[in-house]
Amino acid sequence: MAIPTNDHNFYMKKAMHQAEIAFEEGEIPVGAVVVCNGQIIAKAYNQTERLNDITAHAEMLAITSAANYLGGKYLQDCTLYVTLEPCVMCAGALYWSQIGTLVYGASDSKRGFSKISEPLLHPKTKLVSGVLARESELLMKAFFAARRK
Amino acid sequence: MAIPTNDHNFYMKKAMHQAEIAFEEGEIPVGAVVVCNGQIIAKAYNQTERLNDITAHAEMLAITSAANYLGGKYLQDCTLYVTLEPCVMCAGALYWSQIGTLVYGASDSKRGFSKISEPLLHPKTKLVSGVLARESELLMKAFFAARRK
Repeated sequence: MAIPTNDHNFYMKKAMHQAEIAFEEGEIPVGAVVVCNGQIIAKAYNQTERLNDITAHAEMLAITSAANYLGGKYLQDCTLYVTLEPCVMCAGALYWSQIGTLVYGASDSKRGFSKISEPLLHPKTKLVSGVLARESELLMKAFFAARRK
Repeated sequence: MAIPTNDHNFYMKKAMHQAEIAFEEGEIPVGAVVVCNGQIIAKAYNQTERLNDITAHAEMLAITSAANYLGGKYLQDCTLYVTLEPCVMCAGALYWSQIGTLVYGASDSKRGFSKISEPLLHPKTKLVSGVLARESELLMKAFFAARRK
């Protein structure tokens, strides 16, 4: 059965799976996938601890991986799904990538890019938010609750 | 003879040398170095073309390299010198790195982070701008003039 390419929940579940891998590895649980023509061409999860690198957010790794797969730097025909609202760094990277659509799950009230009042994404990028937001929030809460023990 | 650690011109010249390597390799000529206790611990130049990766700005590569050298993700005791004003992505990365001081050369009137009216850098980051700005501007102009031929 073909998966409708507009099924945001379907792809966000794949991103959530990446976030769960991050969780199991002791990383802040954020996951991302990049979809192009209905196909997942990149998947990644936050690896800032393992790589000892503050730039290793799920989105950054997914953008690099997707460009590598496509053999081109720009992602106009792609959609990036990420479980948490991107930060300013990742929004800046998404700008340069000219991503076609950004779909995110939970909002990030502290460091989410939408806290900046000026637009940071590329003017042609479509934005969808709140997809599986509750699941993402619960995973984040479980992560930080476990850390406080 | 010891080099005074506050000699911004000295270190910016090292960053300019990185920008010149980028120029020779057909990359937009931006270079960066990271200095810690008077020692250059990382140097990098823009490699977006070679790596086919919009995230491969000089600052991003320098941050990753410096963290790798130090064995820690945060750069509070370091200064990053970069020949061009960082973009929003790089400013966001510098925020996460908690870089001690950012010194940049030429301003970027189109994509420089200071075009955003809200502060993007970490509140503890000191900022110096305009160091060897003219040299950086000339190199950028030469690059784009050569491309138009």
